[in-house]
Amino acid sequence: MRILILGGDGYLGWPTAMYLATKGHKVGVVDNLAKRKWEAEVGSSPLWPISSLQERIKIWNEINEVEFQCNYQHTMEMFVCDIAENRHLLYKIIEGFKPDTIVHYAEQPSAPYSQMDAQACVYTQRNNVLGTLNVLMAVLHADKSIHIVKLGTMGEYGTPNIDIEEGWLDVTHKGRTDKVLYPKKPGSWYHLSKVHDSHNLEFACRTWGIRVTDLNQGVVYGTDTNETLLNDRLATSFHYDAIFGTVLNRFITQAVEGVPLTVYGTGTQTRGLINIRDTIRCIELACETPADAGTFRVMNQFTEQFSIMQLAKRVQAVAIKAGVICVMNTIPNPRVEKENHYYNAKHTALTNLGLIPHLLTDDVLLDIYKQVEKHKSNINKDMIQPTVKWRQ
Amino acid sequence: MRILILGGDGYLGWPTAMYLATKGHKVGVVDNLAKRKWEAEVGSSPLWPISSLQERIKIWNEINEVEFQCNYQHTMEMFVCDIAENRHLLYKIIEGFKPDTIVHYAEQPSAPYSQMDAQACVYTQRNNVLGTLNVLMAVLHADKSIHIVKLGTMGEYGTPNIDIEEGWLDVTHKGRTDKVLYPKKPGSWYHLSKVHDSHNLEFACRTWGIRVTDLNQGVVYGTDTNETLLNDRLATSFHYDAIFGTVLNRFITQAVEGVPLTVYGTGTQTRGLINIRDTIRCIELACETPADAGTFRVMNQFTEQFSIMQLAKRVQAVAIKAGVICVMNTIPNPRVEKENHYYNAKHTALTNLGLIPHLLTDDVLLDIYKQVEKHKSNINKDMIQPTVKWRQ
Repeated sequence: MRILILGGDGYLGWPTAMYLATKGHKVGVVDNLAKRKWEAEVGSSPLWPISSLQERIKIWNEINEVEFQCNYQHTMEMFVCDIAENRHLLYKIIEGFKPDTIVHYAEQPSAPYSQMDAQACVYTQRNNVLGTLNVLMAVLHADKSIHIVKLGTMGEYGTPNIDIEEGWLDVTHKGRTDKVLYPKKPGSWYHLSKVHDSHNLEFACRTWGIRVTDLNQGVVYGTDTNETLLNDRLATSFHYDAIFGTVLNRFITQAVEGVPLTVYGTGTQTRGLINIRDTIRCIELACETPADAGTFRVMNQFTEQFSIMQLAKRVQAVAIKAGVICVMNTIPNPRVEKENHYYNAKHTALTNLGLIPHLLTDDVLLDIYKQVEKHKSNINKDMIQPTVKWRQ
Repeated sequence: MRILILGGDGYLGWPTAMYLATKGHKVGVVDNLAKRKWEAEVGSSPLWPISSLQERIKIWNEINEVEFQCNYQHTMEMFVCDIAENRHLLYKIIEGFKPDTIVHYAEQPSAPYSQMDAQACVYTQRNNVLGTLNVLMAVLHADKSIHIVKLGTMGEYGTPNIDIEEGWLDVTHKGRTDKVLYPKKPGSWYHLSKVHDSHNLEFACRTWGIRVTDLNQGVVYGTDTNETLLNDRLATSFHYDAIFGTVLNRFITQAVEGVPLTVYGTGTQTRGLINIRDTIRCIELACETPADAGTFRVMNQFTEQFSIMQLAKRVQAVAIKAGVICVMNTIPNPRVEKENHYYNAKHTALTNLGLIPHLLTDDVLLDIYKQVEKHKSNINKDMIQPTVKWRQ
């Protein structure tokens, strides 16, 4: 299968590209490399240096050209394109590459970034919503049978007092019934941008008969995949800061650094989590079983639910096992979110397709812990405390 | 009350401005005058010439300065600003004018326009979604107590198989209940932009404690208000074309011109309708009873439901009474929409506040008919046939 990965420079986009290439798919990678600018704006750096995308692709292709000799199918192509700003270049890339599937990661991925100020809010929605519209336009323009696999987030749903289903909800109201898009109440301008995307995608399926899989992903954790381990310079970025770092990665980094884990509020907020190794497998499963033409398919991409406090305690236990003193601090919640809430989110669609989860065992936590420990000297403690406040 | 009207150059913004000024409110009008460009793009003109906004405000202020002598409160101020592109100018206008209420009409208002091509789609969502975000940012920046009255549309809901409530829905699912934002499945990129707005507005209320009234308006019809009748050059724009004309205005123009009424599909699509005189009264009611701080209040702003075929038959009957032969043609539906569907939309919030509807009587239809007839020589028949197809 020919797969074009939008946002292939990112934490998840890059490991996805390598994994799918290893599996025999012809992979193209598109990125505008804006993440480097966003990091610079907030003063954040990945925990270990990340080679340029050009260099990583060069290394990847060298490894694979040698390994497979005359079989170059595992090599990748790279395209620099801002999909939100340059629709016509995106058209050209798609016409040239002729993907069967487009995996769309190319969005500003941070809730705190989107909450920083007016500029970051408007930028996030402009970048994400218009970028996704351009992907739809490009598919309509080039070939309506291209399957779009779009990364959404479990945060789109918020924390409703009813079970979270996978994208759609059967509603009975005053004796009548309908199947509706699951009503969403997200918690940041970033999460809202993904809700807007989902509405736009569903409309395009309904009106044009295109095929979309919307993957509402949980909080991702982890550092390595089989492919990132092939060569140091194939590593993917790992953020531990309060803007771009996801919660578990952040806690582990704090444990390594020997500073208190910063639990926001009571820590009773519950979230769905997923190992980075499962993320890439979920993408593979979605690609290999395309949504039907005209279908807006939604799958919840996480494997386990935890409260933030449970995660902190798990990290604490592992740190103590590793011989480190680890305390946690509950700090005033910088976000506006429910802390005590019901949370029961369905996530059977991907397991039904064959996902066998990497669960959050102590061994998994310890692996990440050790990986972070190797780079302890790079940790900038100033970047871990939250500075962005939801309430202005 | 000091009321700033965004989009004050438009079909509804301008009559709203005059009406609220007459009622003793201090009115400021903001517009980027982009509607003139959109009209030029599609080759559409209002049925009668419309004075520039500057000229209309000059005439309005002259009338009111004379009438009220030393009491200048009925006069208006005008500001040219693109709210989607120039957030800081909007900040400055709001800081200077110090509104109690912002009435936000400043959006690209046409579904067919948004469906024309990729550029028009992306433009519509950029203009509408980012403009509304900037309004929120400006209120946060200037004064969180400013009440935002936002124009939405009944088209946001689509045609669910359950009753349409006013913005929120009590859901019971697997034995648990919650009050959720009413799930929406709109029918165009334009309607989607308003759905995105609603989600963004709700989040701002929830997070920042601001106050918003979202008015989901039905299809508006009519030409005059008491204020537009004061002087020919105070008239508001009247579009009858397939891009900017609403259905009833279009049918009446076709009847006057003696061409068949173009009913899309079977005409069994049902819509909520409202007289332009009720639109301005609804805005007044919303302004005078601000939403509570932190509340996202939604009201459905229409007064009667009709199928498109019922409207065509009503226009036909009135035309025949006026001595004209009037036929109707059902034409292939250019839109993607359900034609046979359940439709029962609640609209009690505004009547509870005191709205006494101007219903769609034959006399009302005949009044519009006569008004259009006066300008029959301006009708461009070529503009009435739909050219924009939803299915590409």
